[in-house]
Amino acid sequence: MIKVGIVGGTGYTGAELLRLFANHPQARVVALTSRKEAGLRADRLFQNLRGHCDVVFSTPDEAKLDECDAVFFATPHGTAMQMAPALIEKGVKVIDLSADFRLKNAAEFRKWYGMEHTQPALLEEAVYGIPETHRIEIKHARLVANPGCHATAVQLGLVPLLEAGVIDTHGIIADSKTGVSGAGRELKLGSMYAEVADSLKAYAVTGHRHQSEIDQELAIAAGGPVGVTFVPHLTPMIRGIHATIYARLTHPEADLQKLFEQRYSGEPFIDVLPAGEHPETRSVRGGNQNRLAVHRAPDGKTVVVLSVIDNLVKGASGQALQCFNLMFDLPEDAGLQAPGLLP
Amino acid sequence: MIKVGIVGGTGYTGAELLRLFANHPQARVVALTSRKEAGLRADRLFQNLRGHCDVVFSTPDEAKLDECDAVFFATPHGTAMQMAPALIEKGVKVIDLSADFRLKNAAEFRKWYGMEHTQPALLEEAVYGIPETHRIEIKHARLVANPGCHATAVQLGLVPLLEAGVIDTHGIIADSKTGVSGAGRELKLGSMYAEVADSLKAYAVTGHRHQSEIDQELAIAAGGPVGVTFVPHLTPMIRGIHATIYARLTHPEADLQKLFEQRYSGEPFIDVLPAGEHPETRSVRGGNQNRLAVHRAPDGKTVVVLSVIDNLVKGASGQALQCFNLMFDLPEDAGLQAPGLLP
Amino acid sequence: MIKVGIVGGTGYTGAELLRLFANHPQARVVALTSRKEAGLRADRLFQNLRGHCDVVFSTPDEAKLDECDAVFFATPHGTAMQMAPALIEKGVKVIDLSADFRLKNAAEFRKWYGMEHTQPALLEEAVYGIPETHRIEIKHARLVANPGCHATAVQLGLVPLLEAGVIDTHGIIADSKTGVSGAGRELKLGSMYAEVADSLKAYAVTGHRHQSEIDQELAIAAGGPVGVTFVPHLTPMIRGIHATIYARLTHPEADLQKLFEQRYSGEPFIDVLPAGEHPETRSVRGGNQNRLAVHRAPDGKTVVVLSVIDNLVKGASGQALQCFNLMFDLPEDAGLQAPGLLP
Amino acid sequence: MIKVGIVGGTGYTGAELLRLFANHPQARVVALTSRKEAGLRADRLFQNLRGHCDVVFSTPDEAKLDECDAVFFATPHGTAMQMAPALIEKGVKVIDLSADFRLKNAAEFRKWYGMEHTQPALLEEAVYGIPETHRIEIKHARLVANPGCHATAVQLGLVPLLEAGVIDTHGIIADSKTGVSGAGRELKLGSMYAEVADSLKAYAVTGHRHQSEIDQELAIAAGGPVGVTFVPHLTPMIRGIHATIYARLTHPEADLQKLFEQRYSGEPFIDVLPAGEHPETRSVRGGNQNRLAVHRAPDGKTVVVLSVIDNLVKGASGQALQCFNLMFDLPEDAGLQAPGLLP
Repeated sequence: MIKVGIVGGTGYTGAELLRLFANHPQARVVALTSRKEAGLRADRLFQNLRGHCDVVFSTPDEAKLDECDAVFFATPHGTAMQMAPALIEKGVKVIDLSADFRLKNAAEFRKWYGMEHTQPALLEEAVYGIPETHRIEIKHARLVANPGCHATAVQLGLVPLLEAGVIDTHGIIADSKTGVSGAGRELKLGSMYAEVADSLKAYAVTGHRHQSEIDQELAIAAGGPVGVTFVPHLTPMIRGIHATIYARLTHPEADLQKLFEQRYSGEPFIDVLPAGEHPETRSVRGGNQNRLAVHRAPDGKTVVVLSVIDNLVKGASGQALQCFNLMFDLPEDAGLQAPGLLP
Repeated sequence: MIKVGIVGGTGYTGAELLRLFANHPQARVVALTSRKEAGLRADRLFQNLRGHCDVVFSTPDEAKLDECDAVFFATPHGTAMQMAPALIEKGVKVIDLSADFRLKNAAEFRKWYGMEHTQPALLEEAVYGIPETHRIEIKHARLVANPGCHATAVQLGLVPLLEAGVIDTHGIIADSKTGVSGAGRELKLGSMYAEVADSLKAYAVTGHRHQSEIDQELAIAAGGPVGVTFVPHLTPMIRGIHATIYARLTHPEADLQKLFEQRYSGEPFIDVLPAGEHPETRSVRGGNQNRLAVHRAPDGKTVVVLSVIDNLVKGASGQALQCFNLMFDLPEDAGLQAPGLLP
Repeated sequence: MIKVGIVGGTGYTGAELLRLFANHPQARVVALTSRKEAGLRADRLFQNLRGHCDVVFSTPDEAKLDECDAVFFATPHGTAMQMAPALIEKGVKVIDLSADFRLKNAAEFRKWYGMEHTQPALLEEAVYGIPETHRIEIKHARLVANPGCHATAVQLGLVPLLEAGVIDTHGIIADSKTGVSGAGRELKLGSMYAEVADSLKAYAVTGHRHQSEIDQELAIAAGGPVGVTFVPHLTPMIRGIHATIYARLTHPEADLQKLFEQRYSGEPFIDVLPAGEHPETRSVRGGNQNRLAVHRAPDGKTVVVLSVIDNLVKGASGQALQCFNLMFDLPEDAGLQAPGLLP
Repeated sequence: MIKVGIVGGTGYTGAELLRLFANHPQARVVALTSRKEAGLRADRLFQNLRGHCDVVFSTPDEAKLDECDAVFFATPHGTAMQMAPALIEKGVKVIDLSADFRLKNAAEFRKWYGMEHTQPALLEEAVYGIPETHRIEIKHARLVANPGCHATAVQLGLVPLLEAGVIDTHGIIADSKTGVSGAGRELKLGSMYAEVADSLKAYAVTGHRHQSEIDQELAIAAGGPVGVTFVPHLTPMIRGIHATIYARLTHPEADLQKLFEQRYSGEPFIDVLPAGEHPETRSVRGGNQNRLAVHRAPDGKTVVVLSVIDNLVKGASGQALQCFNLMFDLPEDAGLQAPGLLP
């Protein structure tokens, strides 16, 4: 049994890791930290875990994280940066769900997250945790930086087009819609039921943190800088992201359907829909799939990609578990085999 | 008291007309038709109308529509085309909430609605019912074609930019998100609670009927053809449309905030938010407002407009009532003074 | 114009008072207090009020509440108790939406609200603000204690039966279901979207504060003590209360439908549905109605009453406004004429 | 591999069987019938099944159901009655999710379902499929009648009290709240999003079909007739049932918590919460658990039981699979090990 630790297990990504590991055949959560809830069983906070998980919150000091084989950080930005180096030093593999190690450029990190990065060398080493674009590196990584949820949906929708060089790399639009759990379990007026139910709004139109990782990673796929206007929207769903991506075709004759099917052939969690279909976020509710459709707009010159994930699974804890499976040479889908919950 | 008739009052736009007219100071619904529900009081179908409306459904024949001063069509496409000419002949003003008279071009109508238009001459005469762009014509119209809901939100967000000539008229993206009531009260699997709750999807990516009226009307604003990629999305809301519009600035130095404020200065139902804010659909729930925000994307070259309406009010029955008020020289906001219902 | 002040206008009941007064023909909100938001326009917090209300938050000291004709308290428990006496002294009529003056018995207040009551004499004087049971006293009151939302729905469903003496006054069950806005606008984990959407739970089964006012008021209707088991449930709605009330008939032969219709004959806001129908909370969304249905269970011996209100309107601010209208001898429905918003 | 057939796989209970069998270690769906969708892959109707299930709808004739080891009926009432006898004859085990075999009394069946029962002998033989009350019989059954969803939640909440003889067997109240998927996937106005979202209503107050099976089964637990007033409510959830049950204690001194814990000790799917807690329907979303809490009302004489299930899992397909596992001597939780999906 692989021993797993989770730092900061009181949020939704922590709870989701516990849910997913509950049925993992070869790993077990043995340490779970929360200063605030130390001493409490996790299933007191998350009623669904009763009967599935008997782990108890402890303080980071008591948790003996360095005896784990792998540690996940489900913490606010700034924590993993402090704690990860010592763990890595001791041979513990680290998967960070926060943004601490996503950006290669420390100046970009400072700009978007408002704090100085204390581990610029690790920034260099960390592997960006999208298996579909970094599988080999993840297998050998000591430190994986799990991507943002919007960033995952947007990248998976654009990578085939950019790699194939069939679109204008500038003037790309990524209109992304997220469920409310993406904002986390912390108390915020903007996450209250009576504030977001039966309503919809855009936010952060003039700049959202995921922009920087999108730019960084898409530049790799494109082999040069890309220009993406990314606008997130808050929608009355618990889970789910639907990114609608628009780009101008430089090669209008390209067989886009085939392009996507070939790029993602053999990928266990990418499902390219048949031509003409539209993915629904509920089809991946609770599951690790990314379901995609590629369309050509009526003008014939614009490609429209529809990309859906569950923000807590493929957009966070499920993708982290997928990386974990790769890092420990387990079947990539261990613990991740559930279909989406529909209806 | 102005005498009002409603043809096809069993759908949501019909019910909404009844709700709005319940508090109209100078008009009264005296005729309401439905072949299927003839003999039934409207408040048996719509419990909220109890105590506010005692009108009874009758067949079109019994309804004596020609004794009305105005008749609204809240019918499927194809009905108004048949019944409107005789009413107009007798001096009854007609406001059609269906698409029968929205398009000037009969061939376009055939293409999108799959039927031959039987009144091409009236197509010419009909006034497209957005007061913010056709107020004077509406005042003198015998026949108003009430716009589509997506089309209203998209046009109101683009007209200031196109009229001012500050954007590239091609490559415009209109990513529109609608509540489920926009699909009407007819039985459809895709409108069932367990099919759409807690989920989101795009639809009709390769072509939606509102495209044609958007193209027609924006060409007027732009003084020439425009290219808009319009993609609608179904979201788990009862009411509400949020259109997110993206365009490339040809005049990046333009003061966009001022442009919008000036264009809509004095408009009773357009609310341009202060710079930097984001409209919420719930802020117009049940109200006739169109709330707008204009942003510049981080690249400085892309304008992002956020445009929200209630699809059943400004997107349908409320805008129809606004036109009615203009046609009868009443205060434009008669019966339309309610703020949105928030929370 | 009657001058109105609102103390604590940053919560949902405060926002709802502003919405309702926006269209009140004879009153105007001139003072609005919030220590935290002093200096801010109310329509910055509540986007729906833009164009309808230009009042600015001020501190209680600056607000000159004593120059108002009436002051509403939309504050947490304990505030009205401190501030109301001085206002009443100066002739200002006070309507308190908190629980400070609902209970006649100071010991009961202490038990349920965990604080000593500082104005026991005013407890005596205050009138419990359900017009359907205390209309005359409200007309002459200096101080009205606006009832709890669950308490309103439960009482209006039971009063006809208790007054008529046709049910066992003990063993009554009141199973009440509320929307989330009833928990207020304060940050609470239990009010977060991702915590309550698509879910349902009971709460406070072993004792809820509204129990005490239900007991007090129903004893008046029954002419003696009653025994009600009251269990509230949190449901995924923004607004709405549905109380389902069960009692054993001591007079099984009673014509229950007629009993309800007669008791509420002439009541502007009570709607007794025809026999066999079921009220929907959405039918009163945003409106001040209480819609009721009375059924006999299949056993013939149990009466089942279904009672729905909008918790923020008839369950709070609308009922407060109804009392205000009575206190100032205005038409009882001034500002309260809107039908529910359906769909 | 055990070969499974599903008759009528286009509804929600059929889709849920496919989802649950997708991860069943020892069984496989080999036949799936639908006259209407014959020839279509199931994952075209249910996007979540893509990659998990390649079964194709066929007509009942083509399906070779008699070559299956077990056949589930997920059909409207009246179908299983026609088709089951021949299958049973050939040694196929039958699990019927419709109501055809739930009632022992053919007259009761006729009364509630409006049709004559054609297999009264099988009525006698069929085992009512709640493992917690009929486990041994289910193990040996040829025909299991899977219970109604409300009926399951209500029975599991009452059985311990009735078996222990600590409550008055008459005057019991079962106030049950269900999600919309309980109404099935057929087109109904009352199941449309814009009709049920953000609203709540009771239905069938004067008599619901589940009443008869509740009465039948509780009489077994009580050893004599019981009197339950059962009122279902439709609530804006996709999945979930929350039954709130009220009964008068005849033995107020009973240790109710212990009673429930002992009765359900060792039950794999029943979770009795610690004293004082409240179950949430979301805690069992997608899972087969029944989560219970038992409370004493403030009067000390009334017991309040809170009982939650997922109506499509423990209330339908999950419970059917639990019975299937028992019938084939498999681990009772095979394919049913997932925790609820929370948030």
